Amino acid sequence: MGDQFLVVGGDAAGMSAASKAKRDAPETDVIVFERSNWVSFGACGLPYYVKGEIAKLEDLVVMEPRRFVEERGIDLRRNHEVTAVDPDAREVTVETDDGHYRESYDELLLATGGQARLPDVPGVDLDGIFPIRSLEAGRALRNYVAHHEERPARGIGSTSARELRSHLDEADPEVVAVVGANKIGIELAEAFLARDLEVHLFDSGPRVLRSFGADIAEMVEDHLAEGGVELHLDSPVERFRGSDGTITMVETADDRVAVDAVAVDVGVDPEVELAEDASIELGPTGAVATDEYGRTSAPDVFAAGDCAEKRELLTGDPILWPFALAANRAGRAVGRTVAGQPAAVGGVVRTLVMKAFDLQVARSGIVDHDEARAAGFDPVSALITSITRAHYYPGWSRMVVHATADAESGRFLGANMVAEEGTAHRINSVATAVTAGMTVDEVGALDFGYAPPFGPVWDPVLGVSKVLEAKLE
Amino acid sequence: MGDQFLVVGGDAAGMSAASKAKRDAPETDVIVFERSNWVSFGACGLPYYVKGEIAKLEDLVVMEPRRFVEERGIDLRRNHEVTAVDPDAREVTVETDDGHYRESYDELLLATGGQARLPDVPGVDLDGIFPIRSLEAGRALRNYVAHHEERPARGIGSTSARELRSHLDEADPEVVAVVGANKIGIELAEAFLARDLEVHLFDSGPRVLRSFGADIAEMVEDHLAEGGVELHLDSPVERFRGSDGTITMVETADDRVAVDAVAVDVGVDPEVELAEDASIELGPTGAVATDEYGRTSAPDVFAAGDCAEKRELLTGDPILWPFALAANRAGRAVGRTVAGQPAAVGGVVRTLVMKAFDLQVARSGIVDHDEARAAGFDPVSALITSITRAHYYPGWSRMVVHATADAESGRFLGANMVAEEGTAHRINSVATAVTAGMTVDEVGALDFGYAPPFGPVWDPVLGVSKVLEAKLE
Repeated sequence: MGDQFLVVGGDAAGMSAASKAKRDAPETDVIVFERSNWVSFGACGLPYYVKGEIAKLEDLVVMEPRRFVEERGIDLRRNHEVTAVDPDAREVTVETDDGHYRESYDELLLATGGQARLPDVPGVDLDGIFPIRSLEAGRALRNYVAHHEERPARGIGSTSARELRSHLDEADPEVVAVVGANKIGIELAEAFLARDLEVHLFDSGPRVLRSFGADIAEMVEDHLAEGGVELHLDSPVERFRGSDGTITMVETADDRVAVDAVAVDVGVDPEVELAEDASIELGPTGAVATDEYGRTSAPDVFAAGDCAEKRELLTGDPILWPFALAANRAGRAVGRTVAGQPAAVGGVVRTLVMKAFDLQVARSGIVDHDEARAAGFDPVSALITSITRAHYYPGWSRMVVHATADAESGRFLGANMVAEEGTAHRINSVATAVTAGMTVDEVGALDFGYAPPFGPVWDPVLGVSKVLEAKLE
Repeated sequence: MGDQFLVVGGDAAGMSAASKAKRDAPETDVIVFERSNWVSFGACGLPYYVKGEIAKLEDLVVMEPRRFVEERGIDLRRNHEVTAVDPDAREVTVETDDGHYRESYDELLLATGGQARLPDVPGVDLDGIFPIRSLEAGRALRNYVAHHEERPARGIGSTSARELRSHLDEADPEVVAVVGANKIGIELAEAFLARDLEVHLFDSGPRVLRSFGADIAEMVEDHLAEGGVELHLDSPVERFRGSDGTITMVETADDRVAVDAVAVDVGVDPEVELAEDASIELGPTGAVATDEYGRTSAPDVFAAGDCAEKRELLTGDPILWPFALAANRAGRAVGRTVAGQPAAVGGVVRTLVMKAFDLQVARSGIVDHDEARAAGFDPVSALITSITRAHYYPGWSRMVVHATADAESGRFLGANMVAEEGTAHRINSVATAVTAGMTVDEVGALDFGYAPPFGPVWDPVLGVSKVLEAKLE
């Protein structure tokens, strides 16, 4: 035996694959190359780190590097950057501080991740504009918005972060813009408000949280406004202006807002340079194309995580889906496959949950009618207002649920929901039903739990199914 | 047209059926006979009423009687007791304060509900022993445990409740026993503690919450003990002793505990007298036997709710399942069927959730190995400890999940879970997966939502599936 399995990238997909391959086939040599010093970290926690609820950046690390080595037997090489893949020779080129070398593989996984997109407008290179993706960017942002006295002593890692810091020690920002009213953008808005900053939230579209469905956005918008966020919707940023190389102003067609810093959340681009250079096929999404096992067009080369496309289960289409669980799951499946037990990476139904201040917002499947029609469905929707606890149980509040079904087949296609409590896990019942291909009648007949502190007798998911059922008759 | 649809019993199943039949077929005459003054109430809220969190018994009413009449066009006859059914003549006999009469039907629904079971031991008829099922029993119990000054003025409805009250105005109880460490029993224990009473909780079995699975009971037991409950497990009550007709002592084989009141939660018996007298078939459970549409052995006579048996979906066996959602759902399906659109009442996978002080406890499907084997499965289980939020997100606590699969088919059979947060709705994803007949691999590949405030990246349901998957390989 003694296959050599190389992994490029040491975050969710890469470390999951490495761990699973080594566990299932201990005789395999598993080497992980990570160009930074960090592996296996929870980037999703960055907004809470910026907010100050999480004390140290190190707290976000899921598993310490040495444990991968000592407990799992993985050859983990940090500060090692893979700069080229040669599928014909079955080798990669690795750059280190001490020069470069080549390493051969039997199987290779590209888990190079994604990069925060930046708006394509003048001034985007100014200091004080933060795309939040890497831990170092999160550290720089926190340092920036924290008061002077809270800032940690110097000694941070990367050069770029040190540069970002250079002018920040003098700054004591008061006004911050967030560009992109998406998940991380709204989480950051909350973090900034908690730090007593004035927050302006810009989005090019008419509604916040586009990916969660515009139909429930109104409740979120009211809530954000009440919380103190200044909303600028239908307001694409046209230019950032600065002074001495540092951001001072955000400009839209109608408005100019003086700011001390900008956080950006307008999307993630898959990091595909290595694959492209090796003539590995990309899909229509721009991410690395893969089959159901995560295999690329090159023999024994896999891709998983944010650099690889995912399969949407309702449409069968490849999509970009740069989220943690999908990356972990795909990585784990590749590890299993490499170990000799072929495992599909699985598709997604685009389930998302988030905390928007005191609201829980969630989505799964297809709710939007244009999307549904594009996928060949004949959409019918229902929007209900339900309650989060029994009507007599203290503390109930309202829950809005919007669900869509296919009129022809009766299939339940998806739902969005928002409330102060009870949507974050409830959405998983929708994800399960959608994945199983259940009809509205089948969803309406599900045997859910009921207790007065947790919902009405007819769970809102069942409730919305009853309304859909009546519409489909 | 102008069918006449009679409904016996005006709670969950009965009112759901009446409402749905009238809505879908407005030309039908729908008459509901309810022997008490109450219709459509949330008996599940009684423990919280006893606790004092719900101010008035009337708050538990889901919909006021006059609204069924005025808004839904239902002929609602309260204080009308159906005392006989004549399937040959297609008539029922109705008793009122003013005598009796017969009413004919085209379709008839028996929704007579269930009665709280009492332990079959000496002294069970003593005053101060409360089986909690009816609103009046709840009112009597609350009056009993409330301090004198909090007790409402007299004027309560039923004779039995008035009798219960007779001696209670003098009492100021300090010690209460709960017999049956089941859902309502534990909810009542919490209510009593909140009223500064000393609480002794008795169960004949070795663990609390038998229906939720003994394997996670330990965490609940520790929590109850910390909360101040005196647990008496493996302690079947052998006798109640009293003085002047009122409870004073609970006796087990090993123990005698002086008490001022007893609340009982040892089960619910279906109320089937009407059906039996009319020679309508009962099933092996003792409840009225029905087909998948809720039809009984008598032509055009349906049964739904706690008086009727339910179908367990994993085994196909008839079972007793006296819970609110199943009753509502079966009633609604019968209403739809009566209106001309045959609708199956649907089965159950025995999903239960409850609040046990500060814990959320939940179950769905089959977890117990004996049960699984009896149903023809080859059970394999996994027990994991997960966390309720991301490991770096403040306030996380542990979650225990126990799940079982069938080794032969790989089918996911069920799970129990307990934590301070996040199990109440999470269990519904299990209910959905079990109902859909998903395998462990399919469950493990579900695209669930993830955000740091609500769980780890691998949702505990996915996490336990990974462990099961490894065991099944």
